[in-house]
Amino acid sequence: MKGGITKWCIRGNKDLDAASKFTVRGVLASIMENLRNDGRPTIPLGHGDPSSFPCFKTTPVAEDSLVDAIRSAKFNCYGPAAGISMARRSVADHLSLNLPYKLSPEDIFLTVGANHAIEVILSVLARPGANILIPRPGYPVYEARAAFSNIEVRHFNLLPENGWEVDLDSVEALADGNTVAIVIINPGNPCGNVFTHEHLKQVAETAKRLGILVIADEVYNHLCFGSKPFVPGGVFGPVTPVLTLGSLSKRWIVPGWRLGWIAINDPNAIMQKYGLVESIKSYISISAEPPTFIQGALPQILEKTTNGFFSNTIDILKEAVDVFYTKLEEIPCLTCPQKPEGAMSCMVKLNLSLLEDIHDDMDFCIKLAKEESVIVLPGAAVGLKNWLRITFAVDPAALEDGLERIKAFYLRHAKKQGELDADQIVSV
Amino acid sequence: MKGGITKWCIRGNKDLDAASKFTVRGVLASIMENLRNDGRPTIPLGHGDPSSFPCFKTTPVAEDSLVDAIRSAKFNCYGPAAGISMARRSVADHLSLNLPYKLSPEDIFLTVGANHAIEVILSVLARPGANILIPRPGYPVYEARAAFSNIEVRHFNLLPENGWEVDLDSVEALADGNTVAIVIINPGNPCGNVFTHEHLKQVAETAKRLGILVIADEVYNHLCFGSKPFVPGGVFGPVTPVLTLGSLSKRWIVPGWRLGWIAINDPNAIMQKYGLVESIKSYISISAEPPTFIQGALPQILEKTTNGFFSNTIDILKEAVDVFYTKLEEIPCLTCPQKPEGAMSCMVKLNLSLLEDIHDDMDFCIKLAKEESVIVLPGAAVGLKNWLRITFAVDPAALEDGLERIKAFYLRHAKKQGELDADQIVSV
Repeated sequence: MKGGITKWCIRGNKDLDAASKFTVRGVLASIMENLRNDGRPTIPLGHGDPSSFPCFKTTPVAEDSLVDAIRSAKFNCYGPAAGISMARRSVADHLSLNLPYKLSPEDIFLTVGANHAIEVILSVLARPGANILIPRPGYPVYEARAAFSNIEVRHFNLLPENGWEVDLDSVEALADGNTVAIVIINPGNPCGNVFTHEHLKQVAETAKRLGILVIADEVYNHLCFGSKPFVPGGVFGPVTPVLTLGSLSKRWIVPGWRLGWIAINDPNAIMQKYGLVESIKSYISISAEPPTFIQGALPQILEKTTNGFFSNTIDILKEAVDVFYTKLEEIPCLTCPQKPEGAMSCMVKLNLSLLEDIHDDMDFCIKLAKEESVIVLPGAAVGLKNWLRITFAVDPAALEDGLERIKAFYLRHAKKQGELDADQIVSV
Repeated sequence: MKGGITKWCIRGNKDLDAASKFTVRGVLASIMENLRNDGRPTIPLGHGDPSSFPCFKTTPVAEDSLVDAIRSAKFNCYGPAAGISMARRSVADHLSLNLPYKLSPEDIFLTVGANHAIEVILSVLARPGANILIPRPGYPVYEARAAFSNIEVRHFNLLPENGWEVDLDSVEALADGNTVAIVIINPGNPCGNVFTHEHLKQVAETAKRLGILVIADEVYNHLCFGSKPFVPGGVFGPVTPVLTLGSLSKRWIVPGWRLGWIAINDPNAIMQKYGLVESIKSYISISAEPPTFIQGALPQILEKTTNGFFSNTIDILKEAVDVFYTKLEEIPCLTCPQKPEGAMSCMVKLNLSLLEDIHDDMDFCIKLAKEESVIVLPGAAVGLKNWLRITFAVDPAALEDGLERIKAFYLRHAKKQGELDADQIVSV
């Protein structure tokens, strides 16, 4: 036989294993292994998927549109790589409602959920030496796909004391000639903040100065229940090219449907000029696409969903946030720097010095799962060690129950008064 | 501002554009641009998607299962990265029916159609210097994803004079210590052949000697209508690890549903031992997944579809192949080395010396589209210049019409007798 061949020289791919360590799903799975069946329902405050709660059931419009598309038997065929044109048009029209200019169907690329949109964009932006600016705390799929595409990640901070706004000074300091884009997530995951028009404008102007793209992750678009309205990043497309990511997942509460999109907000056609639109088409043509029948249902879903459905979701989220914020004040080891105004989760600071036998955020989450059947995400998973990401988008009664259990957990693990005093003396 | 930054230094990704040039969809789109509305229906003999013909309508079992899953509202949530466990189990059970051992749910990974399965596998096998053995003619998504993953492609021939069997001598000659896998497509796309048990065994034994994986693309599994039965590559899992790719697309005639799978046929757990299963899990965790409700429908679809539905499809394909093979004999410039026995297409050799003004296969396809509203795929798109890939999986009456039009096209472009004689004199 051939001399050069070593049998079973093929091995696992270590780079890949490194890229995948960033997933929220992976961290949550390892925490959930600690659940014990104590007869109580598990309270899932770890991820943004309220779809299992009856109060967050999707609209019949979405379900009916999907069933109609399937029953029509018109959408069993392959579709074009970027999506069928009626679906692209419906997304363009839908997004244009909130923009000062009109998107065309050619500005829209349909994806298998927004995670796939991240994959598409980072695959297109990859080149030797490239780096990308990503918020901390953030959404770890960016880190994972950047690692897979060999794009260096440079983190800028979101400032809790400034309502989780972007630290624009650090953005300027981090960028160089190899920077390709800045990612902003608005409404904010994981912080539950909402950016103002003025702040988004500053981000766009900074990006323009740096000559980089803005990637506006708007998976939670329109899910705002505080004082600030939702402003789409695309509003600033005339300032600098903005790639918007969106999906049905959160606003229609169907994360399992895997229907997302990329919108090119670039009325000056800068991306077109520099070949970036062609490269998106290239990657899309060798990548996965959402089932044709979901694309076929999309125009109905986007056009026919009533405001009543959306405002009902907002009302429940608002109620949940009130419960969350009030109950949190009863748990001294947790502080939330700002009451959430959007999205489905927020970041809560963990004061370990008040706890007797908890080493860090991961330890907190594992013991909490074990003792109280409550799942929360350690902040380390989204870039902030010894914080927690808590999802409030659950049935408000379940949320109250969950926070009661966290309070009980705190009381059980709290340092006694004497220990606290001793600690304070040492730390002086 | 920062000195080092060149404005709009971000450009299109040329490597990506190169990778995407391989798509069948792209070639067909450029041919279809030549269609003229001549009042006749376009006959699509270019790609394997018969779903628009009423005779190829999918089974009500599939449609009802999907609608039931949606109406249950149980599958709106995110699923695990590899697929929900009941769906993985149903695929394992379904495939085990034709294997001498039993697959477990952990051997199955659900994907967004089989193209996504190719993406997953080639992403996992990528490493510096790696090469992969791919059939010529073949299925260009392998070339595209290999180019994207920087895996060198080495083509081995399928031998038309041997019923399109693998040229095993060339496989041995092409492989070296950096070879990671051999791809076989059975039933054959684009050739319409079916491999025997004996030949598949030889392929597996060759792979074993070389220490490489077998990737068995069985997207057309069970679509056999000649003398040879379908033998799954997984039968040879005890010889060497076999990764099987499958999907609902062809057998259930729903290519737009995008539900595929990877099955690990490796009873000796060699892939596990060398870390490859972990790497598949890693990639799957940062990649797209099929909608949860399609996964929820999968057990019903796989278990409840009747043999009557499958045998009806086979009967129509058999009738279509008879029409195809008979009519083809009336077109002297086209020869089919073997009557198709499986899948949905076959390779037909183009004899340009019989044609007056056709330069090559692409020219043939463009002019045919323009003059006769018939779409076929140039062989160059699947690796064989001056051949054609013709899909016979259309309504038999439409197929007959299409071949009549190709015959008319031939007659219009055929060399006159005198020219032929002159040609023959020159070529002697």
